[in-house]
Amino acid sequence: MITSPDNTQLKLIRKLQRKKARDETGLFAAEGEDLVEAAEVAGWEAEVLLRSAVGAVTPQGRTPHSDVEPELLDRVSSLGSGSRVVGVYRQRWVQPRGELSVYLHGVGDPGNVGAVIRSAHALCDGPVILGPGCADPFSPKAVRASMGSIFARPPARSGFGDLSGAKVALDARAAIKLGAGPLAVEAPLVLCVGAEREGLPPELAAQADLALAIPLRDGGPESLNAAMAATVGLYELANRMAADV
Amino acid sequence: MITSPDNTQLKLIRKLQRKKARDETGLFAAEGEDLVEAAEVAGWEAEVLLRSAVGAVTPQGRTPHSDVEPELLDRVSSLGSGSRVVGVYRQRWVQPRGELSVYLHGVGDPGNVGAVIRSAHALCDGPVILGPGCADPFSPKAVRASMGSIFARPPARSGFGDLSGAKVALDARAAIKLGAGPLAVEAPLVLCVGAEREGLPPELAAQADLALAIPLRDGGPESLNAAMAATVGLYELANRMAADV
Repeated sequence: MITSPDNTQLKLIRKLQRKKARDETGLFAAEGEDLVEAAEVAGWEAEVLLRSAVGAVTPQGRTPHSDVEPELLDRVSSLGSGSRVVGVYRQRWVQPRGELSVYLHGVGDPGNVGAVIRSAHALCDGPVILGPGCADPFSPKAVRASMGSIFARPPARSGFGDLSGAKVALDARAAIKLGAGPLAVEAPLVLCVGAEREGLPPELAAQADLALAIPLRDGGPESLNAAMAATVGLYELANRMAADV
Repeated sequence: MITSPDNTQLKLIRKLQRKKARDETGLFAAEGEDLVEAAEVAGWEAEVLLRSAVGAVTPQGRTPHSDVEPELLDRVSSLGSGSRVVGVYRQRWVQPRGELSVYLHGVGDPGNVGAVIRSAHALCDGPVILGPGCADPFSPKAVRASMGSIFARPPARSGFGDLSGAKVALDARAAIKLGAGPLAVEAPLVLCVGAEREGLPPELAAQADLALAIPLRDGGPESLNAAMAATVGLYELANRMAADV
């Protein structure tokens, strides 16, 4: 039973809220029973697994866990309300692969990065590929927004120029609308999405094999939130690819 | 120039972070130049408009503003980094209307509610209609997630039973897939979306005029984030309706 705030494991969890500590250790923390269970289901073993001495459901996995005074676990939580279970895991990065994947460029909001990891897990077979300027997918906000999909679908890293497969850019300036007519490219496809408002840099969009604009109403905003745009794009491309089979 | 932390306007802004205060006053706060500008563009007049005495771009609108010591404005900010402009506005609720609108049921995350307001503004002509259990669309997180669309597209409130038009439920259990075949219903349409995981309560989904499932991969999660699901549904229905014209 851990009763000291100076416990090494508690200090590690607090430290992992900072990107620098995540980069240095190669670790990250996941808070809450849903996320820890998602890790177990995906076969990830925790480096550290702490549970609140009161009220926590015992994790079913193989990793031994330590009990902690609830107040101490609350204090290292990055969530407002505290968590009853916190796991520490080793970060995993994969190679880009799959018939359909998604590349994000300059998407700096961790909630958006995590949400796209969730959407990709639900809609396509490839990972989320993170380009320059993207938020850390292993930050507490991103891990939470992924709803545990970070474990089943770890991210990849790449520059735009190094992507293989046909690049399909979402670009508000494109003449062809998403959903209009057959796709002029063949799988494997990489959907490429930039930040809200800025979008993909024009010089990158110009290098794409196909550029598509999500049809938006006149008089409304000129862009969707980046996670929404990526999800709509994955939905449409996945449907097209399924129809072509 | 406001130099006292006891200033009535500063205290009001801090108070409006709480739902109770928003309900009692009928007001809400919007932080940051982008949001205040979105309010101006949509023709909303601020009840109070404060700007930091250092570095803020002067709002172009008609509302007179007061200068505040930057540190004091930082302290009433609900954003981590502080804002250089904060406006206080009177909440507006509209009646459900439009050829295509979206009803949310039990969507408790303010970021999701705000993101759907953004998506609806971009993709359909009707408002976001909030049913029971939804987050306050005028909370700081929701207003921010709407990227200012809360001003151009104020929300509506309704119970599921009081919705008019054809109800199209997104329901993971539905036999018909979103995007498969022609729509068996005619506009006006109301897309109905529940919370992630729970979805719409089955007794409500059963009362819908049409139930559709977003096609998801085998082996992936059983649901998308509620805001993602609503956005994909609006995108698909808007495209269908445009094709029918």
